[in-house]
This record gives sequence, C-alpha cells and structure tokens, in this order.
Amino acid sequence: MANAGGTSTFIIILTRDSVRTDRRTITMKQTYISEVAAHAGESVTIKGWLYNVRSSGKLMFLEIRDGSGIIQGILPKNAVPEAVWELAGTLTQESSVIVTGTPREHPKRPGTFELDVAEIELVQLAQEYPITPKEHGVEFLMDHRHLWLRSKRQHAILRVRHEIIRAVRDFFDNDGFILADTPVLTPAACEGTTTLFEVDYFGDEKAFLTQSGQLYNEATAAALGKTYCFGPTFRAEKSKTRRHLTEFWMVEPEVAYAELDDVMTLAERFLSFVVQRVLENRQEELKVLERDTAKLAAIVPPFPRLQYDDAVKMLQQGHADGKVENFFEWGGDFGAPDETFISGQFDKPVMVHRYPAQIKAFYMEEDPTRSDLALCVDVLAPEGYGEIIGGGQRMQSYDKLISRIAEHHLPREAFEWYLDLRKYGSVPHAGFGMGIERCVTWVCGLDHVRETIPFPRMLNRLRP
Amino acid sequence: MANAGGTSTFIIILTRDSVRTDRRTITMKQTYISEVAAHAGESVTIKGWLYNVRSSGKLMFLEIRDGSGIIQGILPKNAVPEAVWELAGTLTQESSVIVTGTPREHPKRPGTFELDVAEIELVQLAQEYPITPKEHGVEFLMDHRHLWLRSKRQHAILRVRHEIIRAVRDFFDNDGFILADTPVLTPAACEGTTTLFEVDYFGDEKAFLTQSGQLYNEATAAALGKTYCFGPTFRAEKSKTRRHLTEFWMVEPEVAYAELDDVMTLAERFLSFVVQRVLENRQEELKVLERDTAKLAAIVPPFPRLQYDDAVKMLQQGHADGKVENFFEWGGDFGAPDETFISGQFDKPVMVHRYPAQIKAFYMEEDPTRSDLALCVDVLAPEGYGEIIGGGQRMQSYDKLISRIAEHHLPREAFEWYLDLRKYGSVPHAGFGMGIERCVTWVCGLDHVRETIPFPRMLNRLRP
Repeated sequence: MANAGGTSTFIIILTRDSVRTDRRTITMKQTYISEVAAHAGESVTIKGWLYNVRSSGKLMFLEIRDGSGIIQGILPKNAVPEAVWELAGTLTQESSVIVTGTPREHPKRPGTFELDVAEIELVQLAQEYPITPKEHGVEFLMDHRHLWLRSKRQHAILRVRHEIIRAVRDFFDNDGFILADTPVLTPAACEGTTTLFEVDYFGDEKAFLTQSGQLYNEATAAALGKTYCFGPTFRAEKSKTRRHLTEFWMVEPEVAYAELDDVMTLAERFLSFVVQRVLENRQEELKVLERDTAKLAAIVPPFPRLQYDDAVKMLQQGHADGKVENFFEWGGDFGAPDETFISGQFDKPVMVHRYPAQIKAFYMEEDPTRSDLALCVDVLAPEGYGEIIGGGQRMQSYDKLISRIAEHHLPREAFEWYLDLRKYGSVPHAGFGMGIERCVTWVCGLDHVRETIPFPRMLNRLRP
Repeated sequence: MANAGGTSTFIIILTRDSVRTDRRTITMKQTYISEVAAHAGESVTIKGWLYNVRSSGKLMFLEIRDGSGIIQGILPKNAVPEAVWELAGTLTQESSVIVTGTPREHPKRPGTFELDVAEIELVQLAQEYPITPKEHGVEFLMDHRHLWLRSKRQHAILRVRHEIIRAVRDFFDNDGFILADTPVLTPAACEGTTTLFEVDYFGDEKAFLTQSGQLYNEATAAALGKTYCFGPTFRAEKSKTRRHLTEFWMVEPEVAYAELDDVMTLAERFLSFVVQRVLENRQEELKVLERDTAKLAAIVPPFPRLQYDDAVKMLQQGHADGKVENFFEWGGDFGAPDETFISGQFDKPVMVHRYPAQIKAFYMEEDPTRSDLALCVDVLAPEGYGEIIGGGQRMQSYDKLISRIAEHHLPREAFEWYLDLRKYGSVPHAGFGMGIERCVTWVCGLDHVRETIPFPRMLNRLRP
C-alpha cells in the first residue's frame, strides 16, 4: 500500500465487493463521530484514524477515532470478499482511514453507536506505532508527547482543560471584567530575579519572561475598573515536583475599589462556577479519568475561611496528635505536607488569609489592625492538591509602597510607573491569580501536572 | 487633604450640608456607571476617578469615570455651603472619589444619564496629572502608557479588543474546535532563526520564543481533529513600522482532513463572525473611534478569492495605468503598497492564494497541478490594512517534507517529531493564523498597531 499525498491521489478503497485502487478526492462530506447519533440508519463518512483493530474470526472490530470521539466499526467476514477481509486485517494502528458506513445504536447500551462498515479508504498506512496498549514509561511517553496526545486519557484531560479555560473566560466576561493582556516580555521582576528566564532584547538590554501580570493589572484595573489577564507565565525554578512547570497559564483578575474580603468572595464564586461547569459538560471525560465527581459536586460557596494564625494552631494540634510530622512555627510559609493537612480538614477549598507580611511579596497591603500581617489569601484545593489561587489586597499608600520597595532591596526606578498608580487616584484594590494547570490537575484528579498542558515545559523537558 | 490608605481611614466627605472629616469604610454597595439607567431616581454610590471638572460659576460639572463608563455629576452652588463648593473646586484630575447621588436622564438626550451629586468622598487627591486634554507626543504617551490607558479612546480600543478576542474564542468553541495551547518556549524555529528571541534554558541549552504554534497545532489536530491555539507570539524583527510589534497575540486554528479551500471558507466565516459581533456589541466604542461602520457591515461571506497569478496581473495593470509605482515581477512577495493596491480593489477582505512555493515556508503543501505553487492563502483586509491572516494546507507526504527540510537547510533532527506526524496516519490538513492586533487595528480604523494592546512591545519599547 502506498502513501497518499496531495489532494487527489491513488488511494486504496476496500468496499464490501472489492479492493480497488482509485483516484479519489477526499473532500466528501465528513460526519464527526460526536454527531452520529443524529444520523442513525443513514450512510455517513467518518474521516479519522484506526485506534485499534481486533478480529473474532468472523467479525472484525475497527475502533475509529476522529478527534471528536471513538466509534466501533464492524466488518463481518462473510459479507466481504476474502481479499477485502485480508487487506482490512493488515491495517495498522493509527493508519489514517476514511470509513463509510451506517451508525446503529448498540442493542444493549443505549446512547452508544456502532458503525456497520461499508467501505474503507486508506489514506496512509501508518508505520509501526510506538505507543501500544502495553505500559510505557513516563519519559518515553513524554518524548512522544506529540503522539501520546492521541490517547483517550489525554483527550479527556485536554477537553477538561478546554472547558475550564472557557468557564474562566465566561465567568469574568459575564461579570463585567475586561480582558487586558499583560506583556510576557518585561523589564523588571515582580518578585525577585532568581527564578526568571532572561531574554536578550536586541542586544540593548535584558528582558525577562513574566512571572505574573499583576503589576500591569493594577494599572488596567485603575483604567477599566475590573480587568483580568490570562496568558502564559514563566518560572525558572529548579524544582522537579509533580506541581511545577516552567511555563504555565495563569488567569489573574484585578478589581479597583475591592478589598481582601471582596476577592475572597470573588474567588469562591469563580472556582465554584468553573468546577460546576466542568461537571455539567464533561461527565464523559471525568468518567474516562475515573474521577470521583461527588467530591467536585461539593465545590459550592461558601468556602471555609481560615486565618493563618488558626491554620498554624491547626498544624500544631495536628503535630500534638501525631498527624503532622514536624512542629510548625508561626511565621513560616506552608510546605506541601502542611497544605495537605490543612486542606484535608475540609471537603471544599479552604481560604487561608492574613499570612505574615514578611513571607509575602512587597506589594501586599498590611492588615490595619496588625501591621505584621498581609491582607492576602491562598486558596488550597481539597484532596491534598494544595494552593491553586493566591491573591490579596495591594498596597494603596505611596509612602508605604516606597518603604516596601526599599526594604525588599528592589530598584526603585524600575517601579516608578507602578508608583504612579498611587500618585494619581490611588484606591483600595485587590485581585488573585489561578494557575490553570494546577486547577486542571485537581479537577481531573491527576497525580502530576505534566499531563494538563499539550506540551509541558519542565526543568529537563523542552521537547518536543 | 490627606491621602487615604488602608481599608478604613479618615477621608474627607463633602455633603450638601458640610465638609467633614470622618472615619468611613469604603465597602458600601457600588453601582457601576454602566448600570445607572436601571437606578434612575434612586440614590446610588459610584466609585471612580475624576475625569474632568468644570464650573459655570453656578454649577459644577464633575465628569466621573469608573472603568465601566463616564457620567457627568452636577453640583449646584446654591445647594451647598460655601466651604463644600470651594473644596469641590480643588479636586484634581484623576483624584479617586466616591460619589453618591441620583441618576437622572438628560432631558434632551434620551439614554444619557447625569448624576445629581449629594455627597463626594475623596479617597485620594491626585498629584498634578501628566496627561492633560492638550496634545501630547506619541513617545510621551507611550512612556505613560499605564496612565494613558485611562482615556476614553484607549477604553474604546481595549473594549473592541476584548470583544474581538471573545468572538474569536466563541467562534471556534462553538464550531467544535478544542483549544490546545502550544508552548512559548520552543527548541526550534518554525521559519528561520534570524527573527527569534533567544532564552537561556537553565544554562543547558537555548530556547526560543515561539513565532507560531502551527507545527504543534498539526500534532494536536491529528489528535483532536479540530484545534486552535491562541497566545502571545514573538518576532525579533528590527522593523519600525506601524504594523509591527515584537510581542503579539495570534489565534491559529488547524483542521485535520481539511484542504486549502476548506480553510479559505473557514477564514471568511470566521472573520465575518468576528466583525459582525463587534458591530453588534460595540457601537458606542466604534463611535468614540469615529469608525465608518458601513465599511465593517460589508464584511460578510463570500470574500473574493484571487489567485496570486491574477493578483500579479492586477498589479502589473495598475503599474501600466500609473496607479502602482513599481513594476511587480511574478515570483516576489507583496510589499505593503502592493497589498494596499490589491485590497483597494475590493470592499471586503480579499483571499490571495497559491503563492510561489519558493517564497513560502517549508511546510506548505504544493499545488498538485503546479508544483511551483504553494497551497496557501493570505487574507488582506480592506482599506489598505494589509495581511491579517496567513495560512494554507500543510505538506502531507513524509518524503517530500524531508526534501523540503533539506532544501531549506533546516536541522532534520529538530523536526523528527514533526516528521512523525507523516509516519503515523498522515492526512491532508490545513489551518491559518490571525494576528489579533492587526485585526483590532483594522476593525477600529487605527493608523498604528501600538494602541491595540495594553502594553506594546516594539523595537525600542520594553517599558513600562
């Protein structure tokens, strides 16, 4: 069998009567597998790939995928000439095929359709496909990520990702937010420079890949009231954990005249909306992923709110009870085991607020009743998934912000434009950021963040 | 008057009876200016900034903006004590204010609301605002981009941008496409390396900022059938034109089992949908921009399709008629004046297809009837806006693609994964890319692309 190339070419066609080699164009009307229910009993043409073939001796079962779904095609041996049967048996996994047949509802599984195959056109016979139903190592699969994406499981994850991103945008768009994209190439670092990717900007100067659009968001929120940015962000962290990517997508809303409580309420409304939308539209995908959807159904407002001080007490009590290994000292940031313990006390995301100012970024507003605390919040996902949202209220006072920049040893000149926002009509304002991949990991119930983005970038992974 | 900082503080309140300094929290219910029509005759609180103030001697007119719109507040002198009147007169442009009053429809302009001001709280008195109603130079405005964004014109442009991006996503989401984000950090260049930004990837190797997600899209389309990516892309071009940004957003759909004609049809459906959506929802913004909307109303399918050969004849005829300065030789790529002339012959976007293969990228499918032509298309926007979409059918044959990679002196090892897509079930497939900022420039009728993104990045512009 020869490769097919170009728009109209010799391709092999297997019909119920014959095998013929013919010149055909392949622009005939395509029916997507997701639509076959509406065409039961009619002749349809599906353009896709062979996902799997098996034969019972009398029947051949051809699993065909086209990106929209998978359908089982059935070819009875006694209905076709020997040559057709034999040739069909040589079709390899991932060969591209155009299959014409009649969809028929499965007699015992309502809603499931099978295809009585009438004709198969072979577009290209695939070489021996490297990913087989047997188990493969993770590194092998990651090296073949461009092909691994063709599996049922990856389809399910990417569709949930799609749904989450759509829900995120719908939530903000329908809530009066204006999308204001912030730049990837930035002259200054938001929070230190050790975890920044450096870019040569026309030989003149260094640029850095953004870690967060927040500082820019504060400018657009002062212009447009309620804004959000949503794009890739970068962290050159030398972390090889199941929660780290060097390139990940983040959505960051920012609201003028909002305070910490307002964004906590926004975060719980937002996260609930996103999770419920996935439950509404992606039941099939969650089933493929064997996700316990009851746990997701519980994600509705209000979420528990826990002051950092009380979270520390909870950890210390956990230590006393022998449930937390190390004694947690007030003033530190939570590690993954701490977050897991805290979030394990709740069946909803928990909003931990008012961390010590010293462990938080320079731009955090201080608590007016306790200046050692920052008006910030981290939202910890349940089931041990840890932080998925971080945010808070931003420093409003020009003078205090200048002091903070000095205390953090940041170059003031890089922040003059940011300081301008406090010179010209400063207002209380607040916002947060949510990492999409961590959210997808949690909603899908995955062990590792690497499968939540089509082409993950990690410490040792820049390919394919 | 003192700055206000923190969540609850001393702020100056001007009421109709007095000036008092009081401790208030500013979390009272906020009504956005965009919503006042529903609250005519009621007392509402608007939280925003002073856009402009003028006084007639007896009446003070305070233009207040809150990001959702602008409303004129009216304060009669004889209704307030002298001290209130005088203090109100000292409020500076962009001071942050919380204004309580009663919206009232303008007696002569139905649909326009004014606010009878009852009380003004000053949140912060702005320092002398650098951007005044007088004319400023472009560089000055670009240096103050974080503040310039507060103007009516920039609001209108950013809202049209928001609408375009939303329409783009709705179009593809509702058409069965799956969003599959492609990476920004890439190991190899799509089309040559001279215009690439280089990134140090953990000292081990070089990464490059993506110029297009297309190669990755081809993998995701083979997995999911119909996909799109939509994110920032980068070109380190040393071009200082009104059409170039170094960082811009691009949407790129890719369809398996699609050919050139299919994506031309997709492009015209897509572009029409986007333009009509802006016309539906952003009339007010287009009015601010003084856009001739009749020209946009004409953007409906079908679009004229013009083979490159015929476009060349058109240019040569134009030259003979004295309307095109230089004689255009078959085989070259169109320059801006050529595109302007061609698109000037039509009142809709024109789809120029089948360019010479030699001036196009290595991955373009060849025309089966003329192997010197590529199955590609550029969509040129009307009114001289030039190319906004580029796309075409991708090389399907493994062997031909290998030859092309060699002819273009590209390192084959970098493309092994891409070649895999032709080893394992190669199918005809096609797609295109549209630059968002060029689309916004056209739809808004702007002279320069720099205003179409909140923080533009150009050859000499990395700040703010």
